[in-house]
Amino acid sequence: MQSEFFPFIIEDQVVGYTHNRFASHLRKYDDVFIYSENNGGRFGSHLKLNSKLKTADERTRVVGEVIKCLGEEDLIPGIRNELYPVTSTFGSPIFFSLERAAAPYFGIKAYGVHMNGYVEKDGQKFLWIGKRSQVKPTYPGMLDHLVAGGLPHGIACGENIIKECEEEAGIPRSISNRARPVGAVSYMDINGFSYKRDVLFCYDLKLPEDFVPKNQDGEVESFQLIPVAHVANVIRRTGFFKPNCSLVIIDFLFRHGYICPEYFGYLDLLQSLRSGDCS
Amino acid sequence: MQSEFFPFIIEDQVVGYTHNRFASHLRKYDDVFIYSENNGGRFGSHLKLNSKLKTADERTRVVGEVIKCLGEEDLIPGIRNELYPVTSTFGSPIFFSLERAAAPYFGIKAYGVHMNGYVEKDGQKFLWIGKRSQVKPTYPGMLDHLVAGGLPHGIACGENIIKECEEEAGIPRSISNRARPVGAVSYMDINGFSYKRDVLFCYDLKLPEDFVPKNQDGEVESFQLIPVAHVANVIRRTGFFKPNCSLVIIDFLFRHGYICPEYFGYLDLLQSLRSGDCS
Repeated sequence: MQSEFFPFIIEDQVVGYTHNRFASHLRKYDDVFIYSENNGGRFGSHLKLNSKLKTADERTRVVGEVIKCLGEEDLIPGIRNELYPVTSTFGSPIFFSLERAAAPYFGIKAYGVHMNGYVEKDGQKFLWIGKRSQVKPTYPGMLDHLVAGGLPHGIACGENIIKECEEEAGIPRSISNRARPVGAVSYMDINGFSYKRDVLFCYDLKLPEDFVPKNQDGEVESFQLIPVAHVANVIRRTGFFKPNCSLVIIDFLFRHGYICPEYFGYLDLLQSLRSGDCS
Repeated sequence: MQSEFFPFIIEDQVVGYTHNRFASHLRKYDDVFIYSENNGGRFGSHLKLNSKLKTADERTRVVGEVIKCLGEEDLIPGIRNELYPVTSTFGSPIFFSLERAAAPYFGIKAYGVHMNGYVEKDGQKFLWIGKRSQVKPTYPGMLDHLVAGGLPHGIACGENIIKECEEEAGIPRSISNRARPVGAVSYMDINGFSYKRDVLFCYDLKLPEDFVPKNQDGEVESFQLIPVAHVANVIRRTGFFKPNCSLVIIDFLFRHGYICPEYFGYLDLLQSLRSGDCS
């Protein structure tokens, strides 16, 4: 429940949210994390970093050591050794960088790039749909749109989508540089101690009819080209798609005219695509 | 200021907002409008209809008589004799219908259909831009996208856009039935006693290269076909466009890849397209 989380504050900015029981595991690391009781201030009870940690590098290093310990205690499973920037909003100064697997335990906003790859044949549109590898640690065997990836520190969205196109679907730069940015979706998801606050930058790429994607990194079991209306039905009637990929595909359905204002709940569904803090 | 408005309540639903000074002009019509002081209830001070008015028809008739009087007193200028449905959210039951010119004085949500008409030549996109007639009562001489209209009671969005295509730009049904719904924008705008809460359903129509729009109702002075990037510059650097049309065009710019996540303020601008109650 949202009420069990309190804000994580750096330099007077809310950068995340931490579960009160998770925070109790941080108490022994009081040279790094400080818990402040509600003293009537702006933020109420909150977590902050020890004020002697002044620079981003210093914070990244010592927080990283704590995360390593929490990983060994299995409080943060699935350490990836991939750093995420910690900011209050996209593009604002970065306070430090945090292990990707730890980000939801601190309610850090995470940004990703997601791309629908489609083909048009005789005026009908088809989406390339991927089936995730059964050995992936997250959402094994579920369905995805063509390309998706987290946005690591220091790489621009446009450059990242080109890199992910190559790794995930074997799309050469000569094609992927036509991917066009089309907006963003956002959501929040609380599950135990984890508070995900994700913003996904969405891209569309119209692919040549004869192009066949080939996964390069072993994360996709197979790809299939499916008529858009059929994809819409699968999303509506089943839980086969990875949930955040459903949002990105529903956004595609809106923009490409597959959902009409005449349908009941049109505006509610449209608004649900940015139900999280989209900043 | 928003704090000078209080809610207009029908059957326990907020349907609008009324300025406290405007409401004082309604006191003499206490067989129609009732002002309720804050009695600690859910809504605080609020305006409601006399509880003896039970049916939509009855409410429409007697409120219409009051609006006529207020029109004669010049408290509500520009009566159009066009009725707007009064609801709490789109598609929910209609409590009564209200003269279009009166809607902002009661902060009623208004819905419209807006369409960008574009042409693609050699891979480059152009937007058809209209210049409003100098004799239009609202925003004379300002720039518009190709087609726009309010959504009157009892007509579906898709049917209305086809009707407006014909009236505003002479687009035959054989072409306009290809207009595709692509989402919605929303905004609020307080100006004196007027509280506009608008939701605009957006459409895109790709027009044949050789099609030239012809205004049929005298509301447009001229049309011009302009490269999309040039339209974007006009919006960024000038105030020539009617403000709500700017939103609809910026939405087009996002969806068609003319604005990149790398630009400063991308997510803020994206979110500003639905800054109003989009329901």
